Amino acid sequence: MANKEKLILVKVGGKVVENPEALHRLITDLSHLEGRKVLVHGGGVLATKTATALGIETTMVDGRRVTDDQTIDVVTMVYAGLVNKRIVCMLQSLGTNAIGLCGADMNIILSHKRPVKTVDYGWVGDVERVDGKALSTLIESGVVPVIAPLTHDGKAHILNTNADTIAAETAKGLSEYYDVTLVFCFEKRGVLADATNDHSVIPWLDLQRYEALKGDGVITDGMIPKLDNAFSTISHGVKEVVITHADCLCDLSQGTHIR
Amino acid sequence: MANKEKLILVKVGGKVVENPEALHRLITDLSHLEGRKVLVHGGGVLATKTATALGIETTMVDGRRVTDDQTIDVVTMVYAGLVNKRIVCMLQSLGTNAIGLCGADMNIILSHKRPVKTVDYGWVGDVERVDGKALSTLIESGVVPVIAPLTHDGKAHILNTNADTIAAETAKGLSEYYDVTLVFCFEKRGVLADATNDHSVIPWLDLQRYEALKGDGVITDGMIPKLDNAFSTISHGVKEVVITHADCLCDLSQGTHIR
Repeated sequence: MANKEKLILVKVGGKVVENPEALHRLITDLSHLEGRKVLVHGGGVLATKTATALGIETTMVDGRRVTDDQTIDVVTMVYAGLVNKRIVCMLQSLGTNAIGLCGADMNIILSHKRPVKTVDYGWVGDVERVDGKALSTLIESGVVPVIAPLTHDGKAHILNTNADTIAAETAKGLSEYYDVTLVFCFEKRGVLADATNDHSVIPWLDLQRYEALKGDGVITDGMIPKLDNAFSTISHGVKEVVITHADCLCDLSQGTHIR
Repeated sequence: MANKEKLILVKVGGKVVENPEALHRLITDLSHLEGRKVLVHGGGVLATKTATALGIETTMVDGRRVTDDQTIDVVTMVYAGLVNKRIVCMLQSLGTNAIGLCGADMNIILSHKRPVKTVDYGWVGDVERVDGKALSTLIESGVVPVIAPLTHDGKAHILNTNADTIAAETAKGLSEYYDVTLVFCFEKRGVLADATNDHSVIPWLDLQRYEALKGDGVITDGMIPKLDNAFSTISHGVKEVVITHADCLCDLSQGTHIR
């Protein structure tokens, strides 16, 4: 089989997105990355601000937004409109041809409404499949897909979908066509061995080392779902996951490397 | 030269877009139209409502929105987010593959900020060029472009741009690749010979007849810029313009036909 081309998929969260200077730095670094690339962005902070300005209360459960009828309109406006087009315009101004997408566009990410168990999250989607082929057609035409964290159910409903999940599922879907490196931009410089020391970045993790560090209590709490997510993409064909600071996108040798 | 394929470009305005039943009828009819197609939508009514809900005052001059810093964010959210993705989701649910775009996506519509003369319209764009080739690549891959009335200036600014203008310029840009029929969905059944009689639709107009009817005072006021716009597309290669009611999209023999 022919060697696959390399592709870098970058995920950036709401805190960078809402900060104009940090976003501009990240987008500039992204535009300088060579080769094929995809950006998945969040926007939660701006969504909460916009909801507040509209007099709509935000309810979070376990860090996830409860998405009622009003809230799905707000996140659709903020993620697919304000944030997505702002990023696309920035990339175009830097000479990088880009296209903004949500999961409904070209039917790239189909999901279903999350079943109600103990919590009714409302219009929230669990991803069923990513159309890596449709995305690869766009990528091969020389454009950078910029993906907002929204999917659809094929029944005319837009569904709010976690951006980390979109990044992971899209990376898996593209791994059939590319050697995918998935980069999670993070507020720290990587996974830390000592949460109080920003310089204690663990440079690499494989599953064995991860299990050992979990057993020793070095890796705990909030990092575990993120890392479980990362290892799941590796087991589905993604070549490498990098967890790094948003300001370090231009040097991917930094951060924590997961294979 | 080989015969060009036919393409229908439909423009629908804010009044249909804000009415869920009317929009659903139109999108259903659009999904049933055979062959290649493009939709350009407005959304002004919803933009004004959203601005009001956010406490932002709307200023219109000669029917055009003055677009200050706050207002460009509102129209970006409403046009490229809420309205555009709602339409794309509807089309997907009807089995029509669609992709939502604004002018910045794939750099399809470049514009410049309107120079200030007597009125400062703010972040409003005058179209410079439409990339018909990029659009035709999407169309030939089997998707229906759904275009929001926003363009960009290549310097990271989104610009609010009249949807009739976007439709006309996009029709011109596509006429190099297709036999384009441009359909303006209208609140009346076509251009009326008697404004008080909805059944007095003028079935066809060419430039000679148009000039005569203007001279006779039959065609006046608000219709003149719309028809000037229509005739301008004809002189730039568009094959036919149809002005018809949004409910009549399934029978394009109705309405006023301009060639």
